[in-house]
Amino acid sequence: MKTEQDPKKHYIQILVENRFGVLSRVAGLFSARGYNIESLSVGQGVDPTVAQMTIVTAGDDRVVEQITKQLNKLIDVIKVVDLSESSFVSRETVLVKVNTTTRPDDRQEAFRIAEIFRAHIVDTSPSTFTLMVTGEGEKIDSMINLLRPLGIKEVVRSGMIAIAREETRSSVRHAKHDGEMPA
Amino acid sequence: MKTEQDPKKHYIQILVENRFGVLSRVAGLFSARGYNIESLSVGQGVDPTVAQMTIVTAGDDRVVEQITKQLNKLIDVIKVVDLSESSFVSRETVLVKVNTTTRPDDRQEAFRIAEIFRAHIVDTSPSTFTLMVTGEGEKIDSMINLLRPLGIKEVVRSGMIAIAREETRSSVRHAKHDGEMPA
Repeated sequence: MKTEQDPKKHYIQILVENRFGVLSRVAGLFSARGYNIESLSVGQGVDPTVAQMTIVTAGDDRVVEQITKQLNKLIDVIKVVDLSESSFVSRETVLVKVNTTTRPDDRQEAFRIAEIFRAHIVDTSPSTFTLMVTGEGEKIDSMINLLRPLGIKEVVRSGMIAIAREETRSSVRHAKHDGEMPA
Repeated sequence: MKTEQDPKKHYIQILVENRFGVLSRVAGLFSARGYNIESLSVGQGVDPTVAQMTIVTAGDDRVVEQITKQLNKLIDVIKVVDLSESSFVSRETVLVKVNTTTRPDDRQEAFRIAEIFRAHIVDTSPSTFTLMVTGEGEKIDSMINLLRPLGIKEVVRSGMIAIAREETRSSVRHAKHDGEMPA
């Protein structure tokens, strides 16, 4: 099983008050230090007055620690966790619209690729398929690369979301429910 | 079939150059106008020098049109599309960690809810399950509400991603591949 901890990538979870301008201030803090945000997702928390962000950034531990400290100083920031320090689960969702008429068998080929990656076909037209898949970043990259020869019309990625694994977890995996590809 | 166009919500797709500070400038434009971003996702485009954002915001058409025009004026913004003007597919992914030991049957109950929503159990410990599901916003809200009595420890949402439907689409739905719940 592959480890989900890349030494260079940091998965930072930030809990913030759901107010105007928070996102802009958080993103500004990264860009002010010349730190690129590789992916970012913002969603509502369980409590609607709270929003939660997942930011993926690449950098050495020391600088990311500095950013984390700066984030903690921001008003409206409730909690910052660098998930990379422990074990976590990460997922990304992507919508990919591909041409299916470039070559004679492209429609079947798109269908086969969808099957291999357990992607769902969420829209279809006489000349296109739109595939949706959720998985780890590498799975998504592989699927996109396999679809390239068909002609990709559009890609929309959600950015990574991540959650800490429970430390005292049992080793049982519910294969029936876990529709992910084996890594 | 439910329409995916809510009159109050706008799904805005923005294609930007993948440079420092773009995200901060885009987010700042919304907050400067007192416009709250309901959800935001940023992911890499097919071309790695390009990033694509999906922003969900609520507001009347006129003001959103103003924001769209302002966005178009920003350096680094390549393209802005308000998807709400046509038909589109939207999805969100959520990771939910729930307690499974509050009441005697909570483990079975969490398992049943996962089955109903076709959620995947991506992590498990003796006292928790972490469920992952991808769907439209309402499906996710319903699942979270059903899980509340168990005790939700953590919720991480990706924010909505959306893609335009192809206008000349055939009406065929590939049920086998579309693992989504009927809406």
